[in-house]
Amino acid sequence: MRSIQWKEGSLIILDQTKLPSQVLYFSCTDYRRVGEAIKKLEVRGAPAIGVAAAYAMVLGAREILNCEKSSFEKRLLAIGQELKKTRPTAVNLAWAVDRMLSFAKEQLSIQDEPAVLALMEQEADRIAKEDSLVNDKISLHGSSLFSEKVSVLTHCNAGALATAEIGTALGVLRRAWANGFINRVFADETRPLLQGARLTVWELMQDNIPVTLITDNMAGWVMKQKMVQAVIVGADRIAQNGDVANKIGTYSVAVLAREHNIPFYVAAPVSTFDFTLPNGDAIPIEERGREEITMFGSVQVAPEGAEVYNPAFDITPHQLVTAIITEHGVLKAPYTKAIQKLSEMKGGF
Amino acid sequence: MRSIQWKEGSLIILDQTKLPSQVLYFSCTDYRRVGEAIKKLEVRGAPAIGVAAAYAMVLGAREILNCEKSSFEKRLLAIGQELKKTRPTAVNLAWAVDRMLSFAKEQLSIQDEPAVLALMEQEADRIAKEDSLVNDKISLHGSSLFSEKVSVLTHCNAGALATAEIGTALGVLRRAWANGFINRVFADETRPLLQGARLTVWELMQDNIPVTLITDNMAGWVMKQKMVQAVIVGADRIAQNGDVANKIGTYSVAVLAREHNIPFYVAAPVSTFDFTLPNGDAIPIEERGREEITMFGSVQVAPEGAEVYNPAFDITPHQLVTAIITEHGVLKAPYTKAIQKLSEMKGGF
Repeated sequence: MRSIQWKEGSLIILDQTKLPSQVLYFSCTDYRRVGEAIKKLEVRGAPAIGVAAAYAMVLGAREILNCEKSSFEKRLLAIGQELKKTRPTAVNLAWAVDRMLSFAKEQLSIQDEPAVLALMEQEADRIAKEDSLVNDKISLHGSSLFSEKVSVLTHCNAGALATAEIGTALGVLRRAWANGFINRVFADETRPLLQGARLTVWELMQDNIPVTLITDNMAGWVMKQKMVQAVIVGADRIAQNGDVANKIGTYSVAVLAREHNIPFYVAAPVSTFDFTLPNGDAIPIEERGREEITMFGSVQVAPEGAEVYNPAFDITPHQLVTAIITEHGVLKAPYTKAIQKLSEMKGGF
Repeated sequence: MRSIQWKEGSLIILDQTKLPSQVLYFSCTDYRRVGEAIKKLEVRGAPAIGVAAAYAMVLGAREILNCEKSSFEKRLLAIGQELKKTRPTAVNLAWAVDRMLSFAKEQLSIQDEPAVLALMEQEADRIAKEDSLVNDKISLHGSSLFSEKVSVLTHCNAGALATAEIGTALGVLRRAWANGFINRVFADETRPLLQGARLTVWELMQDNIPVTLITDNMAGWVMKQKMVQAVIVGADRIAQNGDVANKIGTYSVAVLAREHNIPFYVAAPVSTFDFTLPNGDAIPIEERGREEITMFGSVQVAPEGAEVYNPAFDITPHQLVTAIITEHGVLKAPYTKAIQKLSEMKGGF
């Protein structure tokens, strides 16, 4: 199971909006279709979006191959702009498009367009491979934290579906499972968008890892009954002091883990760290539409006109985080010092 | 808005399965239809079920009025048995049926059937009135805890829809609101069955009390941001030491409230106390069907064959409970002593 895969000049995308009732792959040969997939959340998760956008740039370059050289660069830039607009807040999308653009520009100064196209394909492959390598290193470092058989709770989906490979938090669990140290995974369904129920459970079942689905409000009771011995989640953004922004509900899980003396781990690539942010207070919290809570598919579950509060994520203070697992190793408190060191080694492995 | 109401020889029931999209009342003149309503959860909540069953016995007695006297009592007993079977675990259902049966038996020894029927109607009215009075006293005692304007979080539905009157936890909030001490209510949607979204929000909107719907996993983040200053919930069962069994998710809310130094109140009539249970460990936890979590209406939200854990309620240890509000007053720790005293005054107001 791969969320996206480049195959003989086409980008194969697993449609995540259809999961889990349908496992539907579709093939894109037009960059516009990739943009549409990003917009419609058919492909989601920061790393996966980045990789998809990189290949979309290759598809775009192929389409304009027969125009004049001067026009080629200009048109490629326009394609990049068009792709970036599909999800304006996705940091990885803009990053991948810009990397492909500056790479193409550099190559165009020394090669002809067909050669540049071939090189762009290699550059997109590199972006995918880098993501894969980062996942692999995170899973290696993270799995070292598991030295006896435990059951683990996770929230949302920080898995293969969000990346081009095995995932961050779920990558750690996959390797710990392979090492024989995972008894069972408990997956919070993760309201309102149910990424846990729809994606995490599906992913782990594909790999035959025992997984039990619970509603978010059962997490505390599961801990109280000693049904889990660790928690692991992903992250959307991490500040200088180790405060973690992640899917709404993560903060509650962290408080509950602390209450039950259960370690709370965050798995995230270095690209998740915002080295300019002193702490979590500075992270703006996106509020999303009311229908995510009042409607369920076509079913209305709250009264017409009901007021809703729908923050997309919350901030977990660093004091509640037992360790942060990155591709460079496992960070522990004091985080300010550990993250300072991380920022200095940024870029190299 | 009344969940059930006796009117000119008919029982008017508000169909709670249709809420909030439809506000549909239906009239029962046949006890079998009331039984069906209890079975199908069209009427729900322990006190409301008890009152509905009492009036169903009146409807049953009316139907068999023209048979012989000896046969009347026997047939009334059979109707009672039939009603009890509609929800075998509902304590209040059996209690109300038995109370009506022994009342009828007593009266039959001294009166003719038409007179007994009229008296049975008065007895059912008394049961409804007692519930109303209990609610009223709980709201009176509970509202004394609110002496400045606050916002309050609640979980599930311990409101008018679960009782014959203003509700327990929501009864307290209604009176505190009337007193000018409620700023806003935050309602957990309460997965899996969404009683918060469907019922609590609807009820409070009917009374023009400002209410904001959140998913269960937002409760911690709402507390962290100081958006609520108190929590109030109902209870399914309370042990001798003050441990509280209530809708799943209540325990997590209690832990989160403690973490944020927010008082956690339980509102419950004396009939909720189980004076034979030393503590919460002895309370069996009902596990319900997997479809409640894997399906949403007709929409499948988890993969085919996904494993699920679905406890219907959890136990909140008495250490996390700031106060228990009953019709006899507000209990505070040490609960064992307070509940012992309560058991001694049981029966009288």
